[in-house]
Amino acid sequence: VIETKRGGGAIDDVDLRRLIEGYVAGEIGDGPMAAFLMACVLQGLDGHETSTMTRIFVDSGTKLPLDGIGRPVVDKHSTGGVADGVSLVFAPLVASLGLACVKLSGRGLGHTGGTIDKLESIPGFRVDRSPEELRRQAVKVGCVIASQTAEMVPADRAIYALRDATATVPSIPLIAASVMAKKLAIGADLIVLDVKAGSGAFMGAVEDATSLAETCIAIAREASRPVIAAITDMSQPLGTAIGNALEVAEAIRILCGSAGRLRDLSVLLAGRTLAVLTGVEPDEAEARAAAALLDGSALACFRDMVTAQGGDPRVIDAADDLLPRAPVRRSLAADQAGTLTGTDATAIGEAARALGAGRRRPSEAIDPAVGIVLTPKVGDRLEAGASIGQVHARDEASADAAASAVRAALEIGDAPVEAPPLVHRWLMEVK
Amino acid sequence: VIETKRGGGAIDDVDLRRLIEGYVAGEIGDGPMAAFLMACVLQGLDGHETSTMTRIFVDSGTKLPLDGIGRPVVDKHSTGGVADGVSLVFAPLVASLGLACVKLSGRGLGHTGGTIDKLESIPGFRVDRSPEELRRQAVKVGCVIASQTAEMVPADRAIYALRDATATVPSIPLIAASVMAKKLAIGADLIVLDVKAGSGAFMGAVEDATSLAETCIAIAREASRPVIAAITDMSQPLGTAIGNALEVAEAIRILCGSAGRLRDLSVLLAGRTLAVLTGVEPDEAEARAAAALLDGSALACFRDMVTAQGGDPRVIDAADDLLPRAPVRRSLAADQAGTLTGTDATAIGEAARALGAGRRRPSEAIDPAVGIVLTPKVGDRLEAGASIGQVHARDEASADAAASAVRAALEIGDAPVEAPPLVHRWLMEVK
Repeated sequence: VIETKRGGGAIDDVDLRRLIEGYVAGEIGDGPMAAFLMACVLQGLDGHETSTMTRIFVDSGTKLPLDGIGRPVVDKHSTGGVADGVSLVFAPLVASLGLACVKLSGRGLGHTGGTIDKLESIPGFRVDRSPEELRRQAVKVGCVIASQTAEMVPADRAIYALRDATATVPSIPLIAASVMAKKLAIGADLIVLDVKAGSGAFMGAVEDATSLAETCIAIAREASRPVIAAITDMSQPLGTAIGNALEVAEAIRILCGSAGRLRDLSVLLAGRTLAVLTGVEPDEAEARAAAALLDGSALACFRDMVTAQGGDPRVIDAADDLLPRAPVRRSLAADQAGTLTGTDATAIGEAARALGAGRRRPSEAIDPAVGIVLTPKVGDRLEAGASIGQVHARDEASADAAASAVRAALEIGDAPVEAPPLVHRWLMEVK
Repeated sequence: VIETKRGGGAIDDVDLRRLIEGYVAGEIGDGPMAAFLMACVLQGLDGHETSTMTRIFVDSGTKLPLDGIGRPVVDKHSTGGVADGVSLVFAPLVASLGLACVKLSGRGLGHTGGTIDKLESIPGFRVDRSPEELRRQAVKVGCVIASQTAEMVPADRAIYALRDATATVPSIPLIAASVMAKKLAIGADLIVLDVKAGSGAFMGAVEDATSLAETCIAIAREASRPVIAAITDMSQPLGTAIGNALEVAEAIRILCGSAGRLRDLSVLLAGRTLAVLTGVEPDEAEARAAAALLDGSALACFRDMVTAQGGDPRVIDAADDLLPRAPVRRSLAADQAGTLTGTDATAIGEAARALGAGRRRPSEAIDPAVGIVLTPKVGDRLEAGASIGQVHARDEASADAAASAVRAALEIGDAPVEAPPLVHRWLMEVK
């Protein structure tokens, strides 16, 4: 099998299953599997192989059927970016529109934690939910965000860990199979993929992000599962907060009616979801989503979700007091006047990770309190000395380092520039 | 490092050393190393990387200096083929010409055993020699063929075992580094490479074999070591015997003056070696080599080598009685009259392996007695019913299978065909 893939040939379903199941069972060692994965990275996998691999991943563990919830169920996945708090807004927002959002997440290995790491910064919030609890909360509250259980897609987990250790991550088919296995194991009525493109994303080019989205959609098609995908901009941080508790606080502000690009993308995704699942006209669906952020109904759903998962709902009214606070809070000011022509999202993300907001290894702890708030967006006019945000740090030295890194990540020019689009492209495959 | 090679970039010397030494020390697992090797197979290694890898292999173990032997010392390596008993003839032949041949060999993983497996079919023959014994025998006898010690090139051994398990063998730079590490660890004055090309060899095309030879020569050049390489024909079995004791018996016949392609190639290689090491004109050197096979001097050196290594020298006069004999001996006859237009060397080799002459795994035992004798060469005229050789087998069933396989491997036509050349090309890099 390794030889075939080394030569660029296609792997038979039975052989691929024997290889992956043999690896998970411990009968095949890291060496042959890693050599196979490197051959996959360099020689590719065709659509059929990618679908087969996904199915083998799904079959390796338990599934979560979600029929009989009484509402159309949506599952959402983002490929990850900087200040990407969409899930925190999207889940209660679609719940308030009469849908159910069930999202199982892994812990983040990015510049900040993943969605469940962020939610854990809420005192008492529990991310471990049994299948029965997930279902009950989906019925009653309409949204639940919990951690993946060890019983789901164990083959994907084993292989992802090996890929991480063997520099065999960057392969569109391998990434797509890993993403989609987690989605297909859950019986949602619609899968929403937010595929980020830009300097702060895994995929820099819109074309590569589109290719990943198309590969995911092809897998969903083989499995007869409806999916919509948005290729969204990650050339700068999406929201204004980068850090776990800071992002929860920003999500709460948006659920209270605040504006911004994070709010706008959440509304676009929720509107499109509502339109596909209920047949409401897209413009009308989007208007309803926008209204739900202003009339308090999305916030109420967030409050119910926090309460249902054991969290202290008072954070919603007193985030500053009840969410973890970093001891050092340093104001950031613009060095010079001009137009913000670019923000190096990766540099900002790395600065947040250096503060302790993100992990480098799965075993590392994250510091929920630390992070960066950076308010200007590309195209905004800056005035010299005016505030552009804060650094939230554990100590003075790390605050200094982060402040320098943020300043170096901003590109300020004279000529006005246009804000980048929020969504580069929509792709969908629905009935 | 894996990432760099995945992207086709060059690896820094220090990083490569850290990776390989870390792997040998057990600090780096099979997974990362196998992924790196697959990236090397698919992305290649440049000349500098290949030389560096070779040097790291050599440095990982002890070396065998061979100065002060009192004769010019030659070390020979063949990339392996079917009925390739050249070393058995070459070593005593060059010894009889006043040179010394010191050859350390691994056990074979081919269709038959390796050179030391073949020699072990001589009762009493010992292949384990200490460095001091090797040196003493080189001085006194002029030829010694022994097994590689565990202390030499351990990094190459560890990595070769992983390559074998992970389908990462077929890479010219990796093969060249592995071959040349074993050669550079031994302090011979000249390295002779016999690189086989053809259906029965690892490299089918002359161009690929040439490329391997050139890569080996480049490594030797970096190490300031003289080397000659012959790209030789392996489109049919070289000798007439395929099997361990059978090949020893054939070597003895050639050392007694018998003709054939195996004799011819041995003379060519020995002549070229003598010319390079002593400055004798090539034609004169070749004539001396041919004479040493006829006047008994090469045979005397073989006898001395067998005796020095504990073997029973009477095998030379009574090979049929004293070498292991298979219980079933089946005559092979030509099915039809015509010209032998092709012999599938791999099929013949596989038939010999199926009889028990070769291993599939390093741990397997070989049966020294079994094998195939096939006398006709491409271009020869066959008569229907005339003898073309024998099968030597453990039982009737395996003899039947081998006889059928041999018949199927012969291509008989009407038109006369030319015998393929013995040497396609010579390459050398000497002072």
